[in-house]
Amino acid sequence: MKQSKTFIPTLREVPSDAEVKSHQLLLRAGFIRQNTSGVYSYLPLARKVLKKIETIVREEMDAIDSNEILMPALQAAELWQESGRWEAYGPELMRITDRHNREFALGPTAEEVVTSLVRDELKSYKKLPLTLYQVQTKFRDEKRPRFGLLRGREFIMKDAYSFHATNESLDATYDQMVQAYTNIFTRLGLNFRAVLADSGSIGGTGGSHEFMVLSEIGEDTIAYSDSSNYAANIEMAEVKVDYSHSDAEMKELEKVATPDQKTIEEVSAFLDVVSENIIKSLVFKVDEDLVIVLARGDHEINDIKLKNSLGAELVELAEDAEINELLGSHVGSLGPIKLPIGVKVIADHAIKSIRNGVAGANEDGFHYINVNPGRDFAIDRYEDLRFIQEGDPSPDGEGTIKFAEGIEVGHVFKLGTKYSESMKATFLDENGRAQPFIMGCYGIGISRVLSAVAEQYQDSYGFVWPKQVAPYDVHVISVNTKDEAQLALGEELYKLLKSYRYEVLFDDRQERAGVKFADADLIGLPVRVTVGKKAAEGIVEVKIRHSGETFECAKEEVLDRLNNFF
Amino acid sequence: MKQSKTFIPTLREVPSDAEVKSHQLLLRAGFIRQNTSGVYSYLPLARKVLKKIETIVREEMDAIDSNEILMPALQAAELWQESGRWEAYGPELMRITDRHNREFALGPTAEEVVTSLVRDELKSYKKLPLTLYQVQTKFRDEKRPRFGLLRGREFIMKDAYSFHATNESLDATYDQMVQAYTNIFTRLGLNFRAVLADSGSIGGTGGSHEFMVLSEIGEDTIAYSDSSNYAANIEMAEVKVDYSHSDAEMKELEKVATPDQKTIEEVSAFLDVVSENIIKSLVFKVDEDLVIVLARGDHEINDIKLKNSLGAELVELAEDAEINELLGSHVGSLGPIKLPIGVKVIADHAIKSIRNGVAGANEDGFHYINVNPGRDFAIDRYEDLRFIQEGDPSPDGEGTIKFAEGIEVGHVFKLGTKYSESMKATFLDENGRAQPFIMGCYGIGISRVLSAVAEQYQDSYGFVWPKQVAPYDVHVISVNTKDEAQLALGEELYKLLKSYRYEVLFDDRQERAGVKFADADLIGLPVRVTVGKKAAEGIVEVKIRHSGETFECAKEEVLDRLNNFF
Repeated sequence: MKQSKTFIPTLREVPSDAEVKSHQLLLRAGFIRQNTSGVYSYLPLARKVLKKIETIVREEMDAIDSNEILMPALQAAELWQESGRWEAYGPELMRITDRHNREFALGPTAEEVVTSLVRDELKSYKKLPLTLYQVQTKFRDEKRPRFGLLRGREFIMKDAYSFHATNESLDATYDQMVQAYTNIFTRLGLNFRAVLADSGSIGGTGGSHEFMVLSEIGEDTIAYSDSSNYAANIEMAEVKVDYSHSDAEMKELEKVATPDQKTIEEVSAFLDVVSENIIKSLVFKVDEDLVIVLARGDHEINDIKLKNSLGAELVELAEDAEINELLGSHVGSLGPIKLPIGVKVIADHAIKSIRNGVAGANEDGFHYINVNPGRDFAIDRYEDLRFIQEGDPSPDGEGTIKFAEGIEVGHVFKLGTKYSESMKATFLDENGRAQPFIMGCYGIGISRVLSAVAEQYQDSYGFVWPKQVAPYDVHVISVNTKDEAQLALGEELYKLLKSYRYEVLFDDRQERAGVKFADADLIGLPVRVTVGKKAAEGIVEVKIRHSGETFECAKEEVLDRLNNFF
Repeated sequence: MKQSKTFIPTLREVPSDAEVKSHQLLLRAGFIRQNTSGVYSYLPLARKVLKKIETIVREEMDAIDSNEILMPALQAAELWQESGRWEAYGPELMRITDRHNREFALGPTAEEVVTSLVRDELKSYKKLPLTLYQVQTKFRDEKRPRFGLLRGREFIMKDAYSFHATNESLDATYDQMVQAYTNIFTRLGLNFRAVLADSGSIGGTGGSHEFMVLSEIGEDTIAYSDSSNYAANIEMAEVKVDYSHSDAEMKELEKVATPDQKTIEEVSAFLDVVSENIIKSLVFKVDEDLVIVLARGDHEINDIKLKNSLGAELVELAEDAEINELLGSHVGSLGPIKLPIGVKVIADHAIKSIRNGVAGANEDGFHYINVNPGRDFAIDRYEDLRFIQEGDPSPDGEGTIKFAEGIEVGHVFKLGTKYSESMKATFLDENGRAQPFIMGCYGIGISRVLSAVAEQYQDSYGFVWPKQVAPYDVHVISVNTKDEAQLALGEELYKLLKSYRYEVLFDDRQERAGVKFADADLIGLPVRVTVGKKAAEGIVEVKIRHSGETFECAKEEVLDRLNNFF
């Protein structure tokens, strides 16, 4: 493509509203523009990168006999009501009403649609397993869209769904998917790791892995072992710690004034106790009930573990007014002692080992000291409720935990029969009995991958695209297009390279050399061929963007040099 | 792909809710399924055909330096308010509100978005012309979705937009587009015609052409000359008739009783006058006003011409209550004589030549006879308001008009400055003055094209896909998979042909031969290779779907035979 005929609106300044490197450079190099919060247009260069990502994804999906389809974005509310997600999904689900007052979801994912499709058409175990996928625009009304394409409200996703007669068949397809995803992210040149993950609102009780690109801007934290290949999203990472029990004598419970001391740090300093000996008490709203949840002062409660351990649909911190009504006090002085009848107490395992600890007295400005669980209050259940921490032992028993930040680019789930049971999607087994399909689902955020690659492949001048996803292979630049020799040789090379199936961007613009080079640096194609003052002699300069290697060569050599490089 | 691993839910019966051939067969051959009214899933075979159509469209767009981008489906209401279409588009525009109560359109087209994009980024005439296009899912809340993919509510469209500094530049790009569209529909093997068209709600005052696939199920009627290459949508076709004036003496106006005679046919029979001599009077609501519109009894009023001639936003037949309030009578006895003051009368040119005609008396059950326009009532304007008819002279002066039915698959418009002016999108010209962009827009209904090809390429057994868009090139069928020789030879040919880059569907299913052949007939791939009883001898049967030609050949010859065919 001639640069004079395309649309690459580069910017010299870093846009003030872009927080992360990929977002900044995608804007600066003219790849994307925001239309409205969390909603973007992909300009010509980004569209090309997306297509290459999509092609790699499709090739790997097709290689494992996954069938490409295309389902609608408009999804009838009735389907979501069948699965129970119409209510459960909350405000992130965009909803629309048609002219006949029928309600639809704008699909953020397609479990319901694909389950209804297969339910209506596939009746026999003989036709299983079956895997279907699509590359489609999805919608999710994020509360806080940010980081450009990383957390948008309209985005491109590859979503695949598999249907099985047996768990063994699901396991086999799941493993194939994990391998296909590994191939995809490897081919894309990403530094990634597959980690154990929570199934989230998609649900299902089987396994789940996230594919995380390691990046300082990752919104997810990966807990990994320093000496095994254990890796998990910290949302999921199990805590397996043998807390040491103290043999110290239990002292008498005593209420003490702690005026204005609310945080763990304040109470710890004021009473001169270590935070490990303070019982942190939080009130959660679990579906419709209020529950007291306890963790050690130096630990953080993981609400996903809490939700999973209670089998709840919705878990959130209670409002101050609700807490006050229940306990007669406010956050900062809450505790598990002398609770109203019927209030449940759930505690993290670490609480069990506390001896003569500290807890809020449910009276503003007061705490108890010498608190001993079991003696001073009852615990309904001990569960693994806290986030794992760096330094904890790895749950697989090998080594200790370290943290890394990651961008989630893929996610695979064993759904089991969650959707097929609620939506009554069955097949006839070998004995003619109706059985619910066993399902898996598998997503890749295509537009996220674009951001992840953009985040990883850049330097201080601009992008450094890897060959396999670069918008073009080669940038041919005629430095001074008023010089006929430069323009003619640029054109000649442009046509020659295109005829050999190279994708070429040819800078034929009437712009100053400085503008052209700055734009070329920002765009960051793998090879630059500069046609400058030696054009009349047939000499050009070739620069390899990645290595910075630069050399002059005769125009006749350019093709060979490129063939060697690519 | 092995047929056992894909999803082709064929049907033996013609679905009762499918009215047209393409819709019936796309359902029967397992290409699509309806999710909800006007909303479909494209199953694996249809997805493949769509991709091939998209590839042809992209190749022709890229060849004329049109740049692919991808804009969002979520379009801020503010943009549509700027252009004035938020109100004007009516209930076909799907609207959605986000969690922050901001309104969005679900894009049926993208003039507003692309204009805002270019407005913000392109400032100089030096960067013009520029053409941008996308292949994207679009939404339009059709009142009556029908004919399967032909009139859906969610559909795939290629939409392109061009920006220019001069009308000459727009003309040049428009002509390139017309040529590219001609190439596309020719490559797709469609029997089509480019016809003059109305610009519809997209607006603009320049030229417009529709690309119509000729088909008996077309919802559009094409008026064409029997002796020139004039062709236009009848919505648009100008009527150029010299109506003969009668010299007969004007008789005295007389009111006559016409009890229960309401239609033109009834009045014509009752009063024994030809319909050419009856003045048909209709009341239209034109934006906010009621207007009397007159046409000859044998003519039909074209409300698009009416709308264009009045420069109105909205034109529709008035409600009975509104008519009664205005004229004191009902449809069947309306007429232009003795109207309330201030009511406008617009007449088709043919009315001028009526002498001693008949018109309603605005009194139920009465008509006037000996009505003479000008003498008995005033006419505000004569305009070309009627639909052209078969037998009318061609507007280009050559030959007479005939009709054909067509499916609109493409539409090109010269928009001029309609959007750039209302949205204040300007560039600086050579003299540094701000000028509104001159624009064009160009659409192809990708999913409609699938239907149009499906409509045209079928016989009584099923589809007869043309090579360039067939979902696969070759159908290899092992008739009896329990026969090891048949299964093995099928597999061997499947792998061999795939290795030569043929796209192969291999029927390896454990199904009866009758089922396999019936499915193969429905699916309709260009070549079928049947591996049957002579498999052990290495003999297979090759059938060319299009011609019906069938021959046996040795397995070693299959590749050569295919190479010859393709």
